[in-house]
Amino acid sequence: METSSVVKTSVGIVRKQSFHLENYITVGGRKLREASIGWESYGTLNAAKSNAILIPHYFSGNSHAAGKYREDDALPGYWDSIIGPGKAIDTNKYFVIGVDSLTNLNTKDGITITTGPSSINPDSGKPYGMTFPVVTLPDFVRLQKSLLDQLGITRLHAVIGCSMGAQQAYEWAAAYPDMVDRIVPISGVPSQKAYALVMIESWAAPVRLDRHWNNGNYYGGPEPAAGAALGYYNLLIDSLHPELIATLYGHAAADSGLAPLDAIDHQFLCESALKTQAALGAARADPNHLLYMARACQLFIAGTSGCSVDPSLKNIRAKTLVIQVRTDLIFPSADARVVVAKLKENGTDAEFHELDSSGGHLAIVNEIHKASNLIRSFLDR
Amino acid sequence: METSSVVKTSVGIVRKQSFHLENYITVGGRKLREASIGWESYGTLNAAKSNAILIPHYFSGNSHAAGKYREDDALPGYWDSIIGPGKAIDTNKYFVIGVDSLTNLNTKDGITITTGPSSINPDSGKPYGMTFPVVTLPDFVRLQKSLLDQLGITRLHAVIGCSMGAQQAYEWAAAYPDMVDRIVPISGVPSQKAYALVMIESWAAPVRLDRHWNNGNYYGGPEPAAGAALGYYNLLIDSLHPELIATLYGHAAADSGLAPLDAIDHQFLCESALKTQAALGAARADPNHLLYMARACQLFIAGTSGCSVDPSLKNIRAKTLVIQVRTDLIFPSADARVVVAKLKENGTDAEFHELDSSGGHLAIVNEIHKASNLIRSFLDR
Repeated sequence: METSSVVKTSVGIVRKQSFHLENYITVGGRKLREASIGWESYGTLNAAKSNAILIPHYFSGNSHAAGKYREDDALPGYWDSIIGPGKAIDTNKYFVIGVDSLTNLNTKDGITITTGPSSINPDSGKPYGMTFPVVTLPDFVRLQKSLLDQLGITRLHAVIGCSMGAQQAYEWAAAYPDMVDRIVPISGVPSQKAYALVMIESWAAPVRLDRHWNNGNYYGGPEPAAGAALGYYNLLIDSLHPELIATLYGHAAADSGLAPLDAIDHQFLCESALKTQAALGAARADPNHLLYMARACQLFIAGTSGCSVDPSLKNIRAKTLVIQVRTDLIFPSADARVVVAKLKENGTDAEFHELDSSGGHLAIVNEIHKASNLIRSFLDR
Repeated sequence: METSSVVKTSVGIVRKQSFHLENYITVGGRKLREASIGWESYGTLNAAKSNAILIPHYFSGNSHAAGKYREDDALPGYWDSIIGPGKAIDTNKYFVIGVDSLTNLNTKDGITITTGPSSINPDSGKPYGMTFPVVTLPDFVRLQKSLLDQLGITRLHAVIGCSMGAQQAYEWAAAYPDMVDRIVPISGVPSQKAYALVMIESWAAPVRLDRHWNNGNYYGGPEPAAGAALGYYNLLIDSLHPELIATLYGHAAADSGLAPLDAIDHQFLCESALKTQAALGAARADPNHLLYMARACQLFIAGTSGCSVDPSLKNIRAKTLVIQVRTDLIFPSADARVVVAKLKENGTDAEFHELDSSGGHLAIVNEIHKASNLIRSFLDR
């Protein structure tokens, strides 16, 4: 029995799959002759096809929520701590599906499958660049719906996601109310606030400033990598919290022999460490995709721009478990509380839980195991 | 009497003056053959020279705290609502001095006087650029001290400042404890937090990304204006608060005929309005000065880098009135409370007041009148 419980700690090796759709019409009314997204699954779909849980990902993420592609992968999927046999999202019970978004950032990781500005436009034989149509989170959800149609899944036990993934969970519950039994939105609100709009802009704007951006026509030449890295830096500092940054880095110089007082080019450790981390993320990303992902998120405003979520939230009927990080700077806890109060007012079965962490927004990945029991019991009832 | 009280609402026309120092040695140990800063004053210095109040400015500000230079100036100085005859900082009683910082941002406003990377290096006859030495807030304070020496002022009734100005007030109290009777630090802490360091970096980094930056050697050619504007944009969004941004702009498109869903180049109003405001600020600034001001602030860490403030705050003896904006995102209220608790522990006469505003950090200018009675009575006792 003990051996068996050890084996059961991971979903093991997972296989990336591709879903392809032709002539997809975007929420904005433009046609994509081809739209592809990657997906992967953990657990087994039951005969009644009634045990599926969908996991849309956060802004800089992809489908890879659990397990490893190869034994020697450095890290498993981002939510491996809560997805697996016997874990909060129990793959002994559920068929769990992770999906890539359109215009996904990670075009260079060798595994993400997405259609976006870096894709070849079949009409021209060249990358779309800035001619790619604007897409938004409801587009992501519509592609997921088509994938489920193909798999013959007509009901979802739950949609669970964090950040941009939480927003897609809201969109699912509003767009397909008869199809979604439960949602677990973790640190994300159904109506993007004006402050989030302008903050997200600071993640994208450096790309346009980069000398190599060239109005998006950089394919085959030097890329605006420095701009993308600065965008990721801004995203990263918005995703952390003062308490955590102080704990991690303090005030040390990046190089103890190169005091920031002595030369303008010397750096603090906190600054250089976060810049390094940001550059690693940006190295996996197509810079134009950063512009499109930013816009996709900025457009997610309840009741507008093709978003199915009514501002009154009255079209949401799925049982809802809202989890919110106490120290989140991108989606403040107070906003999530307002959402839950509104849902309850409308008669929706909704509950609110705050995850106590000093880690800021990124705790939705780094500390999600703290919500294990909450999620497990919510999925059971 | 009524006419008289109307006349008394302003300090009237003020005159910018210049202070010049030769062979100034920076905190970092470098020599500036010439260092100049501008200053201005309101009210009259009494015979005993005992009624002076010093006002160091915030990050993007300058000496111009009250009055107008010319009758037709569009706006008076930034704290005109609290500095003037009969106002909180009463120029019928006090001689109030505003001072420009070294490496001041506003080199292009036609009135700021400062020495920094855009100044001509007397040794080369060319602008310093990145060869200018790093300076920090204690340098600013040392120059202010030299100015006061020249004016024959040996005691200060108070040092009052907001943000970077608040930090200079702490520095004054720590560096010259026998000279400063009172300080009023408004939304600023005596030890820059690691989070503030990385946030400030996001104000400066876009300058280096701009194709025209050229390692700081852009004088006489095209300037990295777009980079400076993006830096100011980041500074601006950090200086506001979600509640205020939502109230001001909501989710409208910048142009109602150009929906952000329809093209990647269409903007939201919140984004374009803040970008416009940021570009106006940046148009007054030398981009290299933004790098140096950022570093000056990043270096203000209690007990290090030449900062006179001891981490224990034990060297601060001036009566201290700390005012903090409730919704400040750059200097969270909680940090200021810790400072006041420490000061009290040390036996310093210190009090804490929270300014209730949904405006974020910028309320230190826009809503400072709300603190009028607090400041007035503190200066009286």
